Amino acid sequence: MIRRLCIIGVGLIGGSLARALREQEACGEIVGCGRREAPLKLAVETGVVDRYTLDPAAAARGADMVVLAVPLGAMESLMGAIRPALDGDAVLTDVGSAKRAVLKAAETVFGGAPENFVPGHPVAGTEHSGVEASFAGLFEGRRVILTPTARTGSAATARVRRMWEAAGAEVVEMDADHHDTVLAGTSHLPHVLAFNLVDSLARGRDAAEVFAYAAGGFRDFTRIASSDPVMWRDICIANADAVLAALDRFGADLERVRKAIERHDGDALLEVFERARAARERWLR
Amino acid sequence: MIRRLCIIGVGLIGGSLARALREQEACGEIVGCGRREAPLKLAVETGVVDRYTLDPAAAARGADMVVLAVPLGAMESLMGAIRPALDGDAVLTDVGSAKRAVLKAAETVFGGAPENFVPGHPVAGTEHSGVEASFAGLFEGRRVILTPTARTGSAATARVRRMWEAAGAEVVEMDADHHDTVLAGTSHLPHVLAFNLVDSLARGRDAAEVFAYAAGGFRDFTRIASSDPVMWRDICIANADAVLAALDRFGADLERVRKAIERHDGDALLEVFERARAARERWLR
Repeated sequence: MIRRLCIIGVGLIGGSLARALREQEACGEIVGCGRREAPLKLAVETGVVDRYTLDPAAAARGADMVVLAVPLGAMESLMGAIRPALDGDAVLTDVGSAKRAVLKAAETVFGGAPENFVPGHPVAGTEHSGVEASFAGLFEGRRVILTPTARTGSAATARVRRMWEAAGAEVVEMDADHHDTVLAGTSHLPHVLAFNLVDSLARGRDAAEVFAYAAGGFRDFTRIASSDPVMWRDICIANADAVLAALDRFGADLERVRKAIERHDGDALLEVFERARAARERWLR
Repeated sequence: MIRRLCIIGVGLIGGSLARALREQEACGEIVGCGRREAPLKLAVETGVVDRYTLDPAAAARGADMVVLAVPLGAMESLMGAIRPALDGDAVLTDVGSAKRAVLKAAETVFGGAPENFVPGHPVAGTEHSGVEASFAGLFEGRRVILTPTARTGSAATARVRRMWEAAGAEVVEMDADHHDTVLAGTSHLPHVLAFNLVDSLARGRDAAEVFAYAAGGFRDFTRIASSDPVMWRDICIANADAVLAALDRFGADLERVRKAIERHDGDALLEVFERARAARERWLR
């Protein structure tokens, strides 16, 4: 049971966590914090949080659980802002999609990752952003990856784990480096590809007509290109090494497919397409 | 009203067309044809077609509308097989996703595209294949693109148009070259990217774990990688020029994004991501 939960960044993820914990009666007071007042007002009006402040230090003061649910680029300065206000036994966690960068930010701000900081990443989301898109069921049946270090206290990790389990998630732990490599492939790279495809087509000469004949396949393929651009800019930079490695592997394989199309090599194409379909069907099962 | 409809290739598209026309009482007898007996038996048992034969010429004989719903690579030999059996006033059409190649096949087989051949492409589908995936509503509200040439008879075009309108589609006409360029961008290229991404990840060292943490974004992004590999092999080869051009434009833009990630250029990334999101939102409206 969390006595006072502080959520900094009451958007899709922060708002959904608040809703889920409230629904499960897993926390007492919920204090919201953000840079803009309008969405926080909405969050209070819709019962997502109990009260709000625009001051991160004031928000964190007296909380026993502080969740940073802001874009990765804002983590370090935010940690610096709340550091003086954090209670000694407060647990700090985040929801960033890249974990090495958050750990590095914590080490910079706190001089080594503090015992009570538990890096986390709920592998859940939709292409919509903001508290108005949040819902209590977002984490149900989804995975949350925690990447505690050797310095992270097991009690702090256990408290963050219980929080996410209360929200309906399955919690797993792994090394931050490993997390970043794994997520680069199935999450970060597809976002880069989808953003790039839509932009590339939109800037083409015949864009209007190209989009006019786009069908359901295109809609699904590009759904993630409607995601929050700031969040994804930050992820690409925070996890640049792993994203670049994933891009390069993808690019080298794509070049082989390109050459197969060029020489009308149906067998080579069929091999790739059949392997892909089989792999995806295995994954779905 | 079609007296006797012959559908060669009773899969997702051919089967759905048969179901839709039957539901609308827009045709009399429906004769199915294919290479394998089991799915055709199933098509008769489930009322999709009235009878079937494995002989394309026998299937086409006596039909006033013949629909070729097979992969692009099979079009030319199929046209050759049915040519002697086609009634003089029978209308021939196809559902191939690339139109130049089908026109070329018709020109080869018939010595110039015949007056009664109307190339067509229903921009509809799912990632599932086979008659068991077919359903009457597949074309409802979807576009069907016809690409008649100067030699195509207007009466033949009108009959194919009425058939697709009876199936619930909106019919538009355009030049085959233009069709192939437009569809390369929003349909053929995304399929190549999706197939390649899944295969690339599946062949990686940490494939099992990478897939284990894939979420909803990945599922939607790769849905089209579950599409029929043979059909997509044929599309890539039949529309190779336009697909390669689309791939190259995409690749050049992706290289710019790659460089932006490399130099941690948040502004450049944000520009692309914001433009992409805005373009997609405009398209959805």
